[in-house]
Amino acid sequence: MLRLSREIRVEWGHCDPARIVYNPNFYDWMEGGLLALLSVAGFDLATMIAKDVDFRGTPLVRGDASFMAPARVGDLIVHHVEVSRWGGKSFDLSHRFTLGETTLLEGSQTRVWGRANPDNPASLAAVPVPDAVKAALSEDKVIRLTLHQETQV
Amino acid sequence: MLRLSREIRVEWGHCDPARIVYNPNFYDWMEGGLLALLSVAGFDLATMIAKDVDFRGTPLVRGDASFMAPARVGDLIVHHVEVSRWGGKSFDLSHRFTLGETTLLEGSQTRVWGRANPDNPASLAAVPVPDAVKAALSEDKVIRLTLHQETQV
Amino acid sequence: MLRLSREIRVEWGHCDPARIVYNPNFYDWMEGGLLALLSVAGFDLATMIAKDVDFRGTPLVRGDASFMAPARVGDLIVHHVEVSRWGGKSFDLSHRFTLGETTLLEGSQTRVWGRANPDNPASLAAVPVPDAVKAALSEDKVIRLTLHQETQV
Amino acid sequence: MLRLSREIRVEWGHCDPARIVYNPNFYDWMEGGLLALLSVAGFDLATMIAKDVDFRGTPLVRGDASFMAPARVGDLIVHHVEVSRWGGKSFDLSHRFTLGETTLLEGSQTRVWGRANPDNPASLAAVPVPDAVKAALSEDKVIRLTLHQETQV
Repeated sequence: MLRLSREIRVEWGHCDPARIVYNPNFYDWMEGGLLALLSVAGFDLATMIAKDVDFRGTPLVRGDASFMAPARVGDLIVHHVEVSRWGGKSFDLSHRFTLGETTLLEGSQTRVWGRANPDNPASLAAVPVPDAVKAALSEDKVIRLTLHQETQV
Repeated sequence: MLRLSREIRVEWGHCDPARIVYNPNFYDWMEGGLLALLSVAGFDLATMIAKDVDFRGTPLVRGDASFMAPARVGDLIVHHVEVSRWGGKSFDLSHRFTLGETTLLEGSQTRVWGRANPDNPASLAAVPVPDAVKAALSEDKVIRLTLHQETQV
Repeated sequence: MLRLSREIRVEWGHCDPARIVYNPNFYDWMEGGLLALLSVAGFDLATMIAKDVDFRGTPLVRGDASFMAPARVGDLIVHHVEVSRWGGKSFDLSHRFTLGETTLLEGSQTRVWGRANPDNPASLAAVPVPDAVKAALSEDKVIRLTLHQETQV
Repeated sequence: MLRLSREIRVEWGHCDPARIVYNPNFYDWMEGGLLALLSVAGFDLATMIAKDVDFRGTPLVRGDASFMAPARVGDLIVHHVEVSRWGGKSFDLSHRFTLGETTLLEGSQTRVWGRANPDNPASLAAVPVPDAVKAALSEDKVIRLTLHQETQV
C-alpha cells in the first residue's frame, strides 16, 4: 500500500487548559491525512468535486481510536496513514501518530466513496471506489511530507 | 444514570465544502457534552483544575463512533450523553446525536480520572473516580439544555 | 436596527494553555453571530445558497477588534451583534462580547453581498444587498438567544 | 527585523460551504505564526510557560485585517510575519498571506508581554518585553518554513 507519513507541528491553539493536545485535533488531522494521501496519489479532492457536481467526497462511516500518550505545544509529531482494506464501495484507513519512538494514537476508519443519490440528490449513495484510485493508493511506496527550515541572511 | 441532552445549532463554520458537518466537530461536541454533564452534576472542571494543581481532567483513552446521517447548516441537533460504565479509575460515556427522529451518530468513549504522576509530574496517572462524582452522575434524572429565542420590541 | 444578543458557554476546547479563550474563537463566534442575525430576521443562509447556486454568502472584507478582558472555561458570555452601516453592496457589523458587566471585546466588520462573477464564476462579485434583507435587519427590535436548563426527574 | 515566511497547505477542514477558507482560520494561523516566529528566534513559548509559572504568553490586545482574495482546498499559501513596532510593554506584528503573486490578507496585531498580576494572580499585567526577545526578533534575516515531499520506493 501507499504509506504516507507527514510531520505536524503542535501549535498553541491545538492545546487545551490541561496543556496537551485537545483530542478532536487528532480527528481533524486524520481528515487532513486522507486528503494528503489522495493528493500525493494524484487525486485532488477539491478538483474532483469541482469537476463532478455529484461527487460527495469520502464520508466517514465508522471510526475508532486509542489514545496512548499526550502531545504538547511545539512537539513535532508524525502522522502515518494508509489504506488497510478495500471493500467494494468502502475502504478502511489505518492511522498512527508518533512522537519520536512513542506512539500517541492508533486508529482506524471506514469510509465510502460518495455520490449524490440519483433518486434524491440531497442524500448520498455509496458507489464503487474508482479503480484508478484503488490502484494508486495500493502502490507499494512510502511518501513523506516534512517541514523544513531555511535561513537567508 | 444522569442523562444530559443538549441542543446544538449547526453553524456555517461547522460545515465543510461538501456542505455537511465536518466530522471532527462531533468529537469536539463530545468533549463539550462531558463538560456540561459534569457541570450540571455540580462539578466545574475549570474550578477543579484551578483548585487542585495536580488534577489533570478526564483524558480520553479510547473512542469509537458510527456516523449514520449528515447534518447541515442551521440544523438543530441534540446531543445525548450519559455514563454507560463505571470502572475503578475509568468510566465509559455513551454519546448519541439526533436530528428530529434521525440518529446521526452513536459513539462511546473510555476516559480516566487523571492526576499528575507523583513520580513524574509531567506525566499522568489514572486515579479512582471520586465517589461524589460517581454518585452525582449516577442519579436517575434527565437534564435538558435548550436554546431559546425571545423578542423584545 | 435589529439587535441580536446570544449567550455562549465557554467550553474546554475554546481555551488554550494560558487557560483563557483562544482568541480565534471570537472570530468564529462573529461568523456565528451573523448567521444567527440573518436567521432570526428570516434569512437562512444555507437555504439561500442551496436555492441560488450563484449566491456566495457574505464574505468578510475587513475587520478589527479590541480585546479588553479574557474569558475562561465555564463562563457564560453574551455576543451582541447588529448592522452598524448599510452601503450599496456592503454593510458593517458591530460586535461586542460581554461577561456580566465586563466588556471582553469590541469589533467591527465590513462584509459584502457576494455572487458568482458572471464573467468568471470561480471569482466573486459584490452585488447590492437585497432590500428585503436591509429592511428586516433594520427593524428596531431586540432578539435574545439564551441557554436554558430543565430537569426532568 | 526577523522575517518569517511559512507555507500552509489549505485543508478540507479549513474550508466552508462556500468552498473557500473559513475566515477564522486566518486568525488561527496568525497565532501559529507568532509561535513559529518566537520559536525560530530561540524562544519556545511552551517551555517559557512551564518554567515561569507567572508568564502568561503574549495576549492579543488589538487586531485588524483586510481580506483581499479567497483561498481554496489544496492551495499552498504563504504566511509572512514580522514585528512592525516595539513598544515598552507591547509590540505590533505585521501579517501577510499570499497565494503565488496574489495577496490574500494583510493585517496587524498589537500584543503585550503578559505576566500574572502580583496583586491578583488571576488577572494579567503587561510587563516590559525582555531585551533578549527584542534583540532576537530584531535581527535582520529571513527564515522560511517550507513543506517538502519525498518518495521512498
